[in-house]
Amino acid sequence: MQTPQKIAVVGSGLVGTLLAIYLKKLGHTVHVLDRSPDIRTVEFSGRSINLVMSNRGWKALEDIGLTEEIKKIGIPVDKRAIHLKDSKLNYQYYGKEGEAIYSLSRGVLNRKMIDLAEAAGVEFFFEHRIWDVTLADATLHIGETERGEWTDLKYDKVFGADGAFSRIRHRMQRQSMFNYSQEFLNIGYKELHIPANPDGSHKIDKNSLHIWPRGNFMLMALANLDGSFTCTLFMPFEGENSFESLKDEKTLVDFFAEFFPDTKEVIPDLVRDFFKNPTSYLVMMKCFPWTHADNVALIGDSAHAIVPFYGHGMNAGFEDITVLNEMIAKYGDDWEAIFKAYEKSRKPNADAIAELSYRNFMEMSAKTADEKFLLQKKIEKWFSDKHPDLWMPLYSRVTFSLQPYSEALAIGDFQNKIMEEVMQMENIETIWDSEVVEQKIISLLSK
Amino acid sequence: MQTPQKIAVVGSGLVGTLLAIYLKKLGHTVHVLDRSPDIRTVEFSGRSINLVMSNRGWKALEDIGLTEEIKKIGIPVDKRAIHLKDSKLNYQYYGKEGEAIYSLSRGVLNRKMIDLAEAAGVEFFFEHRIWDVTLADATLHIGETERGEWTDLKYDKVFGADGAFSRIRHRMQRQSMFNYSQEFLNIGYKELHIPANPDGSHKIDKNSLHIWPRGNFMLMALANLDGSFTCTLFMPFEGENSFESLKDEKTLVDFFAEFFPDTKEVIPDLVRDFFKNPTSYLVMMKCFPWTHADNVALIGDSAHAIVPFYGHGMNAGFEDITVLNEMIAKYGDDWEAIFKAYEKSRKPNADAIAELSYRNFMEMSAKTADEKFLLQKKIEKWFSDKHPDLWMPLYSRVTFSLQPYSEALAIGDFQNKIMEEVMQMENIETIWDSEVVEQKIISLLSK
Repeated sequence: MQTPQKIAVVGSGLVGTLLAIYLKKLGHTVHVLDRSPDIRTVEFSGRSINLVMSNRGWKALEDIGLTEEIKKIGIPVDKRAIHLKDSKLNYQYYGKEGEAIYSLSRGVLNRKMIDLAEAAGVEFFFEHRIWDVTLADATLHIGETERGEWTDLKYDKVFGADGAFSRIRHRMQRQSMFNYSQEFLNIGYKELHIPANPDGSHKIDKNSLHIWPRGNFMLMALANLDGSFTCTLFMPFEGENSFESLKDEKTLVDFFAEFFPDTKEVIPDLVRDFFKNPTSYLVMMKCFPWTHADNVALIGDSAHAIVPFYGHGMNAGFEDITVLNEMIAKYGDDWEAIFKAYEKSRKPNADAIAELSYRNFMEMSAKTADEKFLLQKKIEKWFSDKHPDLWMPLYSRVTFSLQPYSEALAIGDFQNKIMEEVMQMENIETIWDSEVVEQKIISLLSK
Repeated sequence: MQTPQKIAVVGSGLVGTLLAIYLKKLGHTVHVLDRSPDIRTVEFSGRSINLVMSNRGWKALEDIGLTEEIKKIGIPVDKRAIHLKDSKLNYQYYGKEGEAIYSLSRGVLNRKMIDLAEAAGVEFFFEHRIWDVTLADATLHIGETERGEWTDLKYDKVFGADGAFSRIRHRMQRQSMFNYSQEFLNIGYKELHIPANPDGSHKIDKNSLHIWPRGNFMLMALANLDGSFTCTLFMPFEGENSFESLKDEKTLVDFFAEFFPDTKEVIPDLVRDFFKNPTSYLVMMKCFPWTHADNVALIGDSAHAIVPFYGHGMNAGFEDITVLNEMIAKYGDDWEAIFKAYEKSRKPNADAIAELSYRNFMEMSAKTADEKFLLQKKIEKWFSDKHPDLWMPLYSRVTFSLQPYSEALAIGDFQNKIMEEVMQMENIETIWDSEVVEQKIISLLSK
């Protein structure tokens, strides 16, 4: 058991609240501070993308006995439903029979997590605006405004779970030898909505992640418990098919009729939602180190904000907690050793999932509508089913295993090189499930 | 002629003062503000690397009639003097006969530039601490401390020439769609000193850039007008031969005796200077965009801090001014067009010189002691002398031409691929200046 500490977790998001539960169960005094009001008391949103929980997220919940509570509010999703331009539907299963990711509404999950944290004895302080931190002694500086009066709150440890625009990281960034990057994509996103049927059922298959892939833009939809879907339109800010180009009602309606004809029936409030909801940015943040001495650490998006195309932002953040907890078990009261081992273990994996997520935009928005790509995935699945010991597809490694992301990325690249050769075999369209292909892959694997 | 504007240049360094002279000559009211005292009134140093001015820098001075003034305080340097571990000396000429870079003391040059700017009518405000800027209306916020009272200074335009740790960029960084990165090297540097002889002459050849290349660390020296040399020791912070390892007097003296034996006579104050002078960091900063609407722009290190191994930090900053001035001539009073064209033209070139500078550490610290590398350079020079129309070496493109850095980098990479093939020719050591090598290069060039 560790010596009890007074710990501040900055940020009451998903990673902050789960971390708080872990720390509380270890016997510490835990305060969660957030600049925003309690999400349980306000209406949520207009700028959210639904979450998907997969094995890494479940592992962190499982270790602390919360899996059942959260499964109740999730909807299993075992495949992509690909809506082609001619309204034809293709399905692509994510893994083996019984493997699924879980769609969760961010607001619903976040409220539940705060309830669970409070039940565990964590104390919450909402509308506490943290403007700065003194790294040397883990003191938070809060106040109404950045230029106004501040109050100091002294802790033994501070965790910055305050997201992509973290104030804790902002202070660390001004230290020597702190590497940092922020990179905005030229693609933005907007939330849209498919309401439930009058009887509360879903209008389209709830167990699919729906994608309308259109090259450099796409629409996607994930189910909510209440029968509705949260939809997200990803597209460039500027250019031919872009947010900038959809400037009036008629252009918008014509655009949807052309590219997403089968959404007409299911997105009744397109015009209202499109012009009411904000167009949000996508940004990647990287930094190192993640910790300062034995008293301040970054975790989740504040350390590694990634783009949402692999559905792993929350999963990677929850895995940070799993690893931190392992290091606590290993190093006890030596918090400097805990922090050093934690950041060293997590940094290469955070970089790997950042890269995988970035690449996945092209996979989702363009390749899922490409026959050749779908055939490649089919061959991989067929070979993997025959030789599960020789081949686990990249998606399964990332999503249905706990293999470090960096290993998954490296092996995925190796597998992809093999598949490039396989796809160049003559008549691959007809011989794809033949012994010659099977032997070819086996021989390439042993090179 | 432009409509006169009230312009603030933040930073009284080399780029800030030269920019101020340009803007003043265009008819604007120009204030230069700096948080530091007037460099003319304080002792300079202990943490400087000497500057080298090359063609891009001279071009910016020439266009405004300052070349002669500055040449007086510079020392031409036409070659590298490579001090091998056995005290043997090799010379490597930088360019053709008569081509040279100019060694300049930062302090001497900066003082001279401020004198010239004042003579041109620029107003200086030292010890004015700028903490923030309101981008929307080009207002600077100054005060004693970051948390204390601030005064607002309203301008028409603000230029951030405030270096790698720019406060102006710091504000821009908090805007959406602003990309930014800072990356610290694991290599630090320390200033050392070779004093003049009693008669004021130089102890070693003043027209050489002296390098003691030792693999992952090196010493270098550049002459000053007063007969002394500013030396810089570059080495890793940690590891076998590192700043961390040189922890006491004996270790330091033994280390210099082993690796830099011929410096014993010329660096008499090694021990005092080493332990007195700080170990400084090397950092690369990149960002984009560099401008905000028509009222704020970054220039020099604030937009693109690079490492010093190509000697192009100041030259790249001065070239920013040349390009900005071209855009002013082209777009007149349309400052938004000026700023957009300026950043678009400069960004790829700033990225290219950042890359070239980063790579040059390995060239200076390791390759200059490598026989194979020196032979390759000799072949390039020989071929270039025979066929100046077919081959200009990379160093000459970067340093003795005004070709955009990005083109120099691309062509340099192409040339390097050719040289890799040439160096693999049998008996290249003996046939290096034969017709067969000449024809080989010509044939590879036309591929």
